[in-house]
Amino acid sequence: MYRLLDRMRVVEASSFVASPTCGMYLAQMGAEVIRFDQIGGGPDFRRWPRAKNGASLYWESLNKGKKSIAINLASAEGRALAITLITAPGPTGGLFVTNYPVEGFLSHERLSALRPDLVTLRIMGRADGGPALDHTVNCAVGFPQITGPSGLGDAVVNHVLPAWDLLTGAYSAFAFLAAERHRRDTGAGQEVRVPLADMAIASVANLGMLAEVLDSDANRPRLGNQIFGAFGRDFTTTDGHRLMLMALTVRQWQGLVEALGIAQGVAQIEAGQGVSFARDEGIRFEHRDKLVPLVEEAVAKRTLADLACAFEPLGVCWSPYQSMREAADDPDLVRANPIFTEVEQPSGARYPIPGAPATIPKAERLPPARAPRLGEHTDEILANVLGLSSGEVGKLHDSGIVAAG
Amino acid sequence: MYRLLDRMRVVEASSFVASPTCGMYLAQMGAEVIRFDQIGGGPDFRRWPRAKNGASLYWESLNKGKKSIAINLASAEGRALAITLITAPGPTGGLFVTNYPVEGFLSHERLSALRPDLVTLRIMGRADGGPALDHTVNCAVGFPQITGPSGLGDAVVNHVLPAWDLLTGAYSAFAFLAAERHRRDTGAGQEVRVPLADMAIASVANLGMLAEVLDSDANRPRLGNQIFGAFGRDFTTTDGHRLMLMALTVRQWQGLVEALGIAQGVAQIEAGQGVSFARDEGIRFEHRDKLVPLVEEAVAKRTLADLACAFEPLGVCWSPYQSMREAADDPDLVRANPIFTEVEQPSGARYPIPGAPATIPKAERLPPARAPRLGEHTDEILANVLGLSSGEVGKLHDSGIVAAG
Repeated sequence: MYRLLDRMRVVEASSFVASPTCGMYLAQMGAEVIRFDQIGGGPDFRRWPRAKNGASLYWESLNKGKKSIAINLASAEGRALAITLITAPGPTGGLFVTNYPVEGFLSHERLSALRPDLVTLRIMGRADGGPALDHTVNCAVGFPQITGPSGLGDAVVNHVLPAWDLLTGAYSAFAFLAAERHRRDTGAGQEVRVPLADMAIASVANLGMLAEVLDSDANRPRLGNQIFGAFGRDFTTTDGHRLMLMALTVRQWQGLVEALGIAQGVAQIEAGQGVSFARDEGIRFEHRDKLVPLVEEAVAKRTLADLACAFEPLGVCWSPYQSMREAADDPDLVRANPIFTEVEQPSGARYPIPGAPATIPKAERLPPARAPRLGEHTDEILANVLGLSSGEVGKLHDSGIVAAG
Repeated sequence: MYRLLDRMRVVEASSFVASPTCGMYLAQMGAEVIRFDQIGGGPDFRRWPRAKNGASLYWESLNKGKKSIAINLASAEGRALAITLITAPGPTGGLFVTNYPVEGFLSHERLSALRPDLVTLRIMGRADGGPALDHTVNCAVGFPQITGPSGLGDAVVNHVLPAWDLLTGAYSAFAFLAAERHRRDTGAGQEVRVPLADMAIASVANLGMLAEVLDSDANRPRLGNQIFGAFGRDFTTTDGHRLMLMALTVRQWQGLVEALGIAQGVAQIEAGQGVSFARDEGIRFEHRDKLVPLVEEAVAKRTLADLACAFEPLGVCWSPYQSMREAADDPDLVRANPIFTEVEQPSGARYPIPGAPATIPKAERLPPARAPRLGEHTDEILANVLGLSSGEVGKLHDSGIVAAG
């Protein structure tokens, strides 16, 4: 955790992936992020993966470093309380992150009537308010038809990573800060909406893939683990390990050729084909039917350990394939990575949790904070943010409008 | 394009995906983003996909809305000019986005000696400076082993979407604004580094998947297109269309059951298994061997058009699978989507390009700007940002230090 976002209090009403990650990124950079939830938990509070005791590892992983207040949102008083929290006065507040529907009791129009400088960042499925989730958006933009080995024919292969959710969450954190900056300059609040579907199709376009299918009037073929337009794919070592080996830059290509001792073979292909692989990754891609067998043979002669020693000093871009269970014990990725600290989470499980995935050499890295228990900060928030007396807080508890965790 | 980031001038020295998207997101929100490149283009200037005339559709898609100055970075004078540009005085400047190596002529230490309030956002492969790219990072964290149909056994399936690049780019835009906000408050600049590898493993953890593999001491099985922990997978209609059908929320589940007319079948499974599918997506996942055939049969009886009519009014979360070529003509996604405008790009090709993938209801959406030609703004930048006279600019041209495009 870092302290870049001082004096910023964000209220979050969120479920699933995109909106909670947006709030979490803000919290990990120093904002005070207050999540309000239905007493007993919202629609994602018990979401899989779960710990053996049934607690959601998912929820607690997506809500690290936030404060939690539990409110009965089914009651008019509870909804009014949530609105009061979002629109509470003070220069650090009036900031709201949500994936609640665009119309309804948390519409920006209603909220900004109470606090005109409110900044609302709303994550949506589709811009028209219709439902869309990561996997439906992904199948609409065409990735499942070009993912996986060519032998799959016209099968569709969904990704497992909810990439569009994560991307939408990170982009939303950016768009939120842009709107907050604008408020600092002008005093004006506003609503910024980030729909998953627009994030996905804009990304297809940003990668040049929309232009590609229009220009060629065809879909990219399924290439398996071969990278499009460059040298890169999976190879297998003599001791049966798989690795990903790539070369985009001049240095990466030279390193690969030298480490594998294939300079002569490469020169023969270059001479035979009348091309140079030195600078242009596209030419390496075009001649992959010649280059891949050469690299395949060279990798297949050597052990993973031997190759690792040869690759590192030459700046070769590669990695062994490892399972997620293996990654969890990888010293570089997790065990000795300073972004991780082992912490006991609300589930009772103790495991490494990351703070901000950034490194600020000149700032102090504070340890990452665990997720709250549901309603853990109910009383603190009612007193400190809303200025309620202990008697008023007690009444809210007695009438079931709030709960503590 | 929106005008949230007024009075912000960012210099970018970038290649490939993450760093250029970071700069592009800033430009699409109103920042002036100046890219400097080697005369003739950097390592990604000719990257695939390319138009028929050889121009990179990739480069022009990732650099929309920026200004371009072309400098001979192989010369000491050219490198000095780049440094002068990054550290030029003025309250709107001193902002730098790059994926250049952490050491070297664009190190933050060197640059900040000339302008102490400089904010540098540096995208890296690994935090230790070692090489890593989207695909090597992805295979290190374990997704390829759990992607694709279960019949693939222990094969590895890379994703085609460079998800970690895109996520790192968006997160970097966020972290950059956080650091710029901190500078506004304190006057202090700093370097923020965002390594791809840390972004990836932190995301695995944020999704609860790191806790899952540690808690279960096992990898998640390969589930094909079945979503883990919820009801959702691909189905085929009677007219041979494939669609993705999901239900996370209560409303989505009720809509799906009603639209498919399977309430009775669902009730029978619930009675037989002694469970309720009404609220808990995890229970729907646990009993998918019973639920999937029921849905499969109902979908297989009807056409895509018929199902679309049934799904929409009930808020069912679904999408047909479409190819990327089909997506490019989809009215909702592209043709009638207000984030897109058809524009002629530097390649000479004319195609729809997106602006910011956000919607700000109360702000004017300006049309998205095309990418620059390489060096298109060389003279303008030398004059306006660096204050050089036309004679000085001419000398730089004569000595081959800069070029115009």
